[in-house]
Amino acid sequence: MPLARISVPSCLPQSKISALAAAVHTALVATCNVPEKDRFQLISVFPPGMMIIDPTFPDVRRTAEASIVEILFLEGRSVEQRRRLFAMIAGIAVDAGFRGDDITIVLTENSIPDWSLGHGFMFEKHHAPA
Amino acid sequence: MPLARISVPSCLPQSKISALAAAVHTALVATCNVPEKDRFQLISVFPPGMMIIDPTFPDVRRTAEASIVEILFLEGRSVEQRRRLFAMIAGIAVDAGFRGDDITIVLTENSIPDWSLGHGFMFEKHHAPA
Amino acid sequence: MPLARISVPSCLPQSKISALAAAVHTALVATCNVPEKDRFQLISVFPPGMMIIDPTFPDVRRTAEASIVEILFLEGRSVEQRRRLFAMIAGIAVDAGFRGDDITIVLTENSIPDWSLGHGFMFEKHHAPA
Repeated sequence: MPLARISVPSCLPQSKISALAAAVHTALVATCNVPEKDRFQLISVFPPGMMIIDPTFPDVRRTAEASIVEILFLEGRSVEQRRRLFAMIAGIAVDAGFRGDDITIVLTENSIPDWSLGHGFMFEKHHAPA
Repeated sequence: MPLARISVPSCLPQSKISALAAAVHTALVATCNVPEKDRFQLISVFPPGMMIIDPTFPDVRRTAEASIVEILFLEGRSVEQRRRLFAMIAGIAVDAGFRGDDITIVLTENSIPDWSLGHGFMFEKHHAPA
Repeated sequence: MPLARISVPSCLPQSKISALAAAVHTALVATCNVPEKDRFQLISVFPPGMMIIDPTFPDVRRTAEASIVEILFLEGRSVEQRRRLFAMIAGIAVDAGFRGDDITIVLTENSIPDWSLGHGFMFEKHHAPA
């Protein structure tokens, strides 16, 4: 029950788009107890000028491949889990050819009664990640 | 003052897109005291490969028509209201030809001072849903 | 560390899109202590029928140029800051040729440990806006 929105520039090759999406999911599974099959991702490609991202704030050097990952997930992940999540997403992305500078990640939270994964049923607690 | 983001695959016919959008609004009005005219919806169509949704998590069988409805609305709706909202959105969607498996719904909340509906004025409490 | 999503109709000329994006950032800097270089904006253009926005709710008269600005930023901004933020975004937009009726703004919040602005590092408090 994370929902990830991945926003990438149109210059990014499909192979890197796929690698970033995979990085996000792999890291959620490894650091945040997200089930392997619990993958919900929306990828949007932005033409030039439609992603306005400062090239250096706060202390990085972004390129034209700068991408933004937004993750909405259940409340309760610790600061340490977030820290490891960020590091792992960026680490895998770098292994796939990204610059670490180009990976911006933003988290938001909601609660179990905020999710319906089909048939109009509210997601029940016993399905939730440990 | 709900804002709904409806994400659909490009294979979905326009008639079903419209039906899903209508289902979301009808259900918000019926279950969450949203005024009939208080409709704000953004619909995004995703090409193949840009919606990565597990086909079966947690216990459903999704098709190529799997769609995601995100609703941002005012805090305060009860679990029971959410439960009825989910059921009604999916129910109307099924009546319009969707499989119930294909309707994923995600809620997030904010507060009255988070909304400006025009002219740069903060939305005032006396306008809020009962 | 605000992330702004700006949703505009396809009839909106590029000059107005740019003006609205600039208005959002200028107002965040002026009213919410956002650093000048802390600009992260995603602009999406919606074809006809894909933005479904009531033309008059609650008491405005929207045109085909009605646009929606969503801002995700750090918790802690006061009601008064929000009020000034709304007023300034709309004010600058009106100066750029928008009708005030056409500017809808929605805020959501998160926390410092929810942000990574590069290299997989968690954003640290000492970087936060005063």
